[in-house]
Amino acid sequence: MTLLAIDLGGTKLAAAVLSDDGAILAEETVLLNGRRGNGVGALIAEQIRKNIEQHADEIDAVGICVPGISRRETGTVWAPNIPGWDDYPLLAETEKVAEGSPVFIDSDRACHILGEEWKGAAQGCRNAVYLAVGTGIGAGILADGSILRGAHDIAGAVGWMALERPFDARYVECGCFETNASGEGLAKLARRMLAQVPHRPSVLRAVHPNELSAGTVFEAYEAGDETAQEVIAAAIEFWGMAAANMVSIFDPEKVLFGGGMFGPAGRFLEQIRDEAKKWAQPIAIERTEIVLSELGPKAGLYGAARMALKALANGGVKNVQ
Amino acid sequence: MTLLAIDLGGTKLAAAVLSDDGAILAEETVLLNGRRGNGVGALIAEQIRKNIEQHADEIDAVGICVPGISRRETGTVWAPNIPGWDDYPLLAETEKVAEGSPVFIDSDRACHILGEEWKGAAQGCRNAVYLAVGTGIGAGILADGSILRGAHDIAGAVGWMALERPFDARYVECGCFETNASGEGLAKLARRMLAQVPHRPSVLRAVHPNELSAGTVFEAYEAGDETAQEVIAAAIEFWGMAAANMVSIFDPEKVLFGGGMFGPAGRFLEQIRDEAKKWAQPIAIERTEIVLSELGPKAGLYGAARMALKALANGGVKNVQ
Repeated sequence: MTLLAIDLGGTKLAAAVLSDDGAILAEETVLLNGRRGNGVGALIAEQIRKNIEQHADEIDAVGICVPGISRRETGTVWAPNIPGWDDYPLLAETEKVAEGSPVFIDSDRACHILGEEWKGAAQGCRNAVYLAVGTGIGAGILADGSILRGAHDIAGAVGWMALERPFDARYVECGCFETNASGEGLAKLARRMLAQVPHRPSVLRAVHPNELSAGTVFEAYEAGDETAQEVIAAAIEFWGMAAANMVSIFDPEKVLFGGGMFGPAGRFLEQIRDEAKKWAQPIAIERTEIVLSELGPKAGLYGAARMALKALANGGVKNVQ
Repeated sequence: MTLLAIDLGGTKLAAAVLSDDGAILAEETVLLNGRRGNGVGALIAEQIRKNIEQHADEIDAVGICVPGISRRETGTVWAPNIPGWDDYPLLAETEKVAEGSPVFIDSDRACHILGEEWKGAAQGCRNAVYLAVGTGIGAGILADGSILRGAHDIAGAVGWMALERPFDARYVECGCFETNASGEGLAKLARRMLAQVPHRPSVLRAVHPNELSAGTVFEAYEAGDETAQEVIAAAIEFWGMAAANMVSIFDPEKVLFGGGMFGPAGRFLEQIRDEAKKWAQPIAIERTEIVLSELGPKAGLYGAARMALKALANGGVKNVQ
């Protein structure tokens, strides 16, 4: 069988043709170039049309990974980084051009853990959590062999995890964990610390506040900067607590750290493990591996293909588990 | 169909014969009276033998709810409050006397949510979390219609949830959430506060520290005692954060508070809801009801019967979902 996988991000779209054993037969990345709403839908439709044409109708199914929530009931998508995609009818728009090949859509959370379970760090797992730490934070959760979805397709919104009392107004926009330990959160925390301790020298003061990113914090950390080290130390604590909570709640075989921050934060994995061990249910954490994602930016493509394959095997039910 | 349900607690055992529509046909409670290990096993076996005899072989299945972990692979049980039950072969011991009726064993966590889903506050739910707050804290989790078990039957150990930095040595024994917000935790926190603020008057000072329980804290709260009010205010914050985390992670239709503390803490449900709303993923919490358990101490019996019924319907597979 042959699958067309499409991984939509906030700034670009990757498309790949894969065999059902996971070999990538063709691959292409296209920038969104500021496209919005219907424009992004048209770009995806164009990719599907082109690939079905090029692969002489060999595509058995199309799997699409979207950066947001795929609503199973309606076939629509909410994607906060694609302007106009509050309830975008992606399924209807793509089925029009798929020439009868079934189209399946799922969230990046679900696709990432499915990709890792198929070809990455979660192979052989029936219980695994993919903590995606990038600009924001979310989780793909495989529980007893099924992707966790919840009553309204929102399950896995772990960026909202409460990890430190008392409630702070900063948490209103994106939650306690994400505010403190996402890429965006690290940059914000660095800015706060620079303002709070105005006399402490820091290489970060040479960076314009608007230019200060998680990347500059990691560079400053490497250079031994005290502010950067405090920011990273706090993040390690939060990442460890979050991993511990996933272990105590889900009792998984593995917790995977992925997303843009892991990446550079991968070097702290041992410290994150040590922090998690302090907090988690002790029998469960002894049996859980805390590891890095293996597929990196390819997790979405593999996951989209795997999701489509699983859906086909289940008779074509949308977003089947 | 007729089921024999047995709910084992730390100090007593309840047994009931139920019809498959949930009518209780007979019921009995027996004190453990200090029995341990094999003695508790013998008491359960005796109940099974007696009920099968009395009900003239009408018992189609036996369901047993245990206060600990039911290990599916081995048919053994770990129950921290029953001395000698580290890996007790309960399945083998009970099958001997069940005269061919199949025996199914599951944890109190799993049974409580199954009972509430059948006859209590979670009826009609496919996604619901039962937060059992008693001497300790645990959760029964229904996710997409199935009981969450995890890789080693430990899932739902939410008493270990990390909710406040930094790690405190007090958390080593039973976790951050349980240390701060279980019945035992409330009593401990009250003792700490009395010691930390030695000059503040408190009605709790009239109680011998060993006698100080969650119950005395609730009574002192009612009498307007400042220390008791601070203890309860902290607990409400922790209960709210925990409920919020269940909502953000599982996106359930309902979160239920039950166990010995709810009960008396039920009067704070509105405040717990308000606290949870601050922290949780905002779309998910708008659609989640936070309610009290309806079955109270009967949840285990109903759940044990429901679990046995479900297992029968699935062809007798042990601990089926």
